[in-house]
Amino acid sequence: MTLLKKTKDKRVNIDFNKEFIKLFNQKLKEEDIAFLDKSLKELHPADSADIIENLTLENRSKLIELEGFNIDPEIFVELNESVQAEIFLLLSTDSIASLLKKLESDNALKILENLDKQKKETVLNKLPPKDRFILEEGLSYPEDTAARIMQREFTAIPSNWLVGQTIDYLRESKDLPEDFLEIFIVDSDFKPIGTVPSSKVLRASRDSKMSSIMSETQVLIPVNMDKEEVGHTFENYNLNSAGVVNKNNKLVGMITSDDILTVVKEEAEEDVLRLAGVGDEEITDSVLKKTKRRFNWLLLNLFTALLATWVISIFGATIEQMVALAFLMPIVASMGGNAGMQTLAVTIRALATKELSSDNFGKIISKEFVIGILNGIIFAVITGLIVQLWFKDMNLSILISISMILNMIVAGLFGILVPISLKKFKIDPAIASSVFVTTITDVIGFLSFLGLGALLFF
Amino acid sequence: MTLLKKTKDKRVNIDFNKEFIKLFNQKLKEEDIAFLDKSLKELHPADSADIIENLTLENRSKLIELEGFNIDPEIFVELNESVQAEIFLLLSTDSIASLLKKLESDNALKILENLDKQKKETVLNKLPPKDRFILEEGLSYPEDTAARIMQREFTAIPSNWLVGQTIDYLRESKDLPEDFLEIFIVDSDFKPIGTVPSSKVLRASRDSKMSSIMSETQVLIPVNMDKEEVGHTFENYNLNSAGVVNKNNKLVGMITSDDILTVVKEEAEEDVLRLAGVGDEEITDSVLKKTKRRFNWLLLNLFTALLATWVISIFGATIEQMVALAFLMPIVASMGGNAGMQTLAVTIRALATKELSSDNFGKIISKEFVIGILNGIIFAVITGLIVQLWFKDMNLSILISISMILNMIVAGLFGILVPISLKKFKIDPAIASSVFVTTITDVIGFLSFLGLGALLFF
Repeated sequence: MTLLKKTKDKRVNIDFNKEFIKLFNQKLKEEDIAFLDKSLKELHPADSADIIENLTLENRSKLIELEGFNIDPEIFVELNESVQAEIFLLLSTDSIASLLKKLESDNALKILENLDKQKKETVLNKLPPKDRFILEEGLSYPEDTAARIMQREFTAIPSNWLVGQTIDYLRESKDLPEDFLEIFIVDSDFKPIGTVPSSKVLRASRDSKMSSIMSETQVLIPVNMDKEEVGHTFENYNLNSAGVVNKNNKLVGMITSDDILTVVKEEAEEDVLRLAGVGDEEITDSVLKKTKRRFNWLLLNLFTALLATWVISIFGATIEQMVALAFLMPIVASMGGNAGMQTLAVTIRALATKELSSDNFGKIISKEFVIGILNGIIFAVITGLIVQLWFKDMNLSILISISMILNMIVAGLFGILVPISLKKFKIDPAIASSVFVTTITDVIGFLSFLGLGALLFF
Repeated sequence: MTLLKKTKDKRVNIDFNKEFIKLFNQKLKEEDIAFLDKSLKELHPADSADIIENLTLENRSKLIELEGFNIDPEIFVELNESVQAEIFLLLSTDSIASLLKKLESDNALKILENLDKQKKETVLNKLPPKDRFILEEGLSYPEDTAARIMQREFTAIPSNWLVGQTIDYLRESKDLPEDFLEIFIVDSDFKPIGTVPSSKVLRASRDSKMSSIMSETQVLIPVNMDKEEVGHTFENYNLNSAGVVNKNNKLVGMITSDDILTVVKEEAEEDVLRLAGVGDEEITDSVLKKTKRRFNWLLLNLFTALLATWVISIFGATIEQMVALAFLMPIVASMGGNAGMQTLAVTIRALATKELSSDNFGKIISKEFVIGILNGIIFAVITGLIVQLWFKDMNLSILISISMILNMIVAGLFGILVPISLKKFKIDPAIASSVFVTTITDVIGFLSFLGLGALLFF
């Protein structure tokens, strides 16, 4: 039993790992196969995967060499993508095929997705026709759709059955999923018309009709619905499981919320990483991969920084005459950038969770405009006072106050307009918005401060 | 049936709402109670809540006035916090008490949490002693712990029961939860020793022992475990439900993954919003609330910007003699800031998902160091070339190249060291890290560029 009891120390897994990983490395060195076998069997697959991820590359190869087929296929499913890829380079296509045979369709699909095209083909050719057909069908749907995360194993019965009849069927049938949260009631065309949670069947008398305990209100997921959208649906309707239907509304699979947890987590994580310009980087990625991933973003940023430099250079003469402008100009740009990022983060989350729509768009925009004015005025006063105390130059204080208000309003408006426009053009707002917003606030910040400065002083 | 079938249009809810909200507003005006009644009854509570959130303040008050008690209590649970608070201002404490009585303990707690202290007391006093006791006990645990999201209603049986005996008990007992995913097997001290999914009970013969179909490997959640940690545990072990135990390891409640979806979503969302300095802002918050929330962050940023200004001002004489330094200095600072934010985002997500621990800390730090050097060299060359072409000044090109390398390394190191140090001091790294990191990259950027400039040129 994996008892998570040590409540004082919140990082139970990690601490358990730290000691254990040492021991595991030691035993790998000694090739103590009995120990390795026993540990991998006793641990939860998620914990075993954790340990394997934390071994050195060398020890991981050794483990695969020593254990090979004895490793529980579920462990492979739990490994993160980069370690999974690394291990699959070591395994023959035969081993991968026999591993897939032992997994449920959704998990087999997850592994197959990450293989390169040629290896995928070879592995598929080594599978029995039925497994192959199911997996190829799954792969035929676009990545990130419900089809890729659904399980093809589910339990469905006709609507006229009694509870007793259902229980007998469940006891006798061999090819039902091992575990299911609800039973689907389907019509003669295999269209789902309701669901009954397993616990309700348990509590009903044998002679009651299944349709009498069925709940009609149900949410069905179309097979090509976007994964993120599926997550949103589960979250919105508090679902534990839902049926998946094809374009003719026939039941083809089901999704349970434990699979959705990963989707919801990954999608939200993506937003954090994309906003910061690192895409789908994982902490285990290699240095070269990481450097490459971050390069494009930094290059883009370099060009926007050069744009700001060009704007400043226009006012070279002004700065030469009053160098204090050079001291103060980063303040206006940076305050605008931060205010813009605040609005941007709220907008991106609101778009992702659908709280922002065309219904309330106008209202939200005007709110941001007012917030921009309010914060602009507040910080115009604060900054103006500080500059006055520091430089004792009324014109300079007025100048920074005016450009502060201007840039704060610009920040609020573009913080909301940029992500919405990108979404209209079907570009993920989390990926590209922050470069646009900070470029705009930089340029407007420098332009308004130095431009007004040139007007005021000369 | 809420059929999500219109697959071409991904935003089904929103579009459905848009037309419907118009109609709903119209019917509210006409005081068509029959229509309002029927709609609220037929719609999923989540959809009804969506509609109420999108009504104007005035129409919301009217709805409460017209419908009052007829509104399904589940709808209140689905409302976002700010709209919930607004509506509870309109309701009497009697109405709130009677509403809570109809809800399951976890949902009642969610509503109670959001009331102000005095109202909470009054409402609690109006509840029957048993409900009151349960809710007060729940409130006695810190916010954000498992106790606040667990359901006190669950199904537990002793380990020596047969399947048939269990089914009879389930059919006869009246005070079991309406629906449950699994049955807990407990020992004589009410300590959980295993679980059986409801579907497994359905499929076993009446004379088999419950303990024979029980699964021993299980994860138990301590009642005071942090919510975020619970989410991580569910996600890590792919759980659909888990038992909650008190400090004596007695079973006191259970948590299902549909509740965890919200937790996982909110926690990841928090990271995005905190990194951008807006805390837990919701899009429906009022302008004043939003302005106030964002103010502190901007104020903090103002002081860090003033620090940068002070650093620049030290080199005032240098800038006056070579104004090109003022044009170029934002480039170094901004590239460092962006590189720092990249590392920071990866680190914060890795800390949240526990992929970063003391086991791999050294490895990760050295990786970031190498990435900093690599990106530093690449961008030193690119920027050096551009500056050479633009300003035709070899010294200036060398200067910007050196300070670029320096600042990129600093960015990588502090992007990882700042969040880890904050976590050590038990400060949420997502809240405070970005200010620290960008301040450091700004200061080091300006200091290295202008300082080296002063050395090189004068």
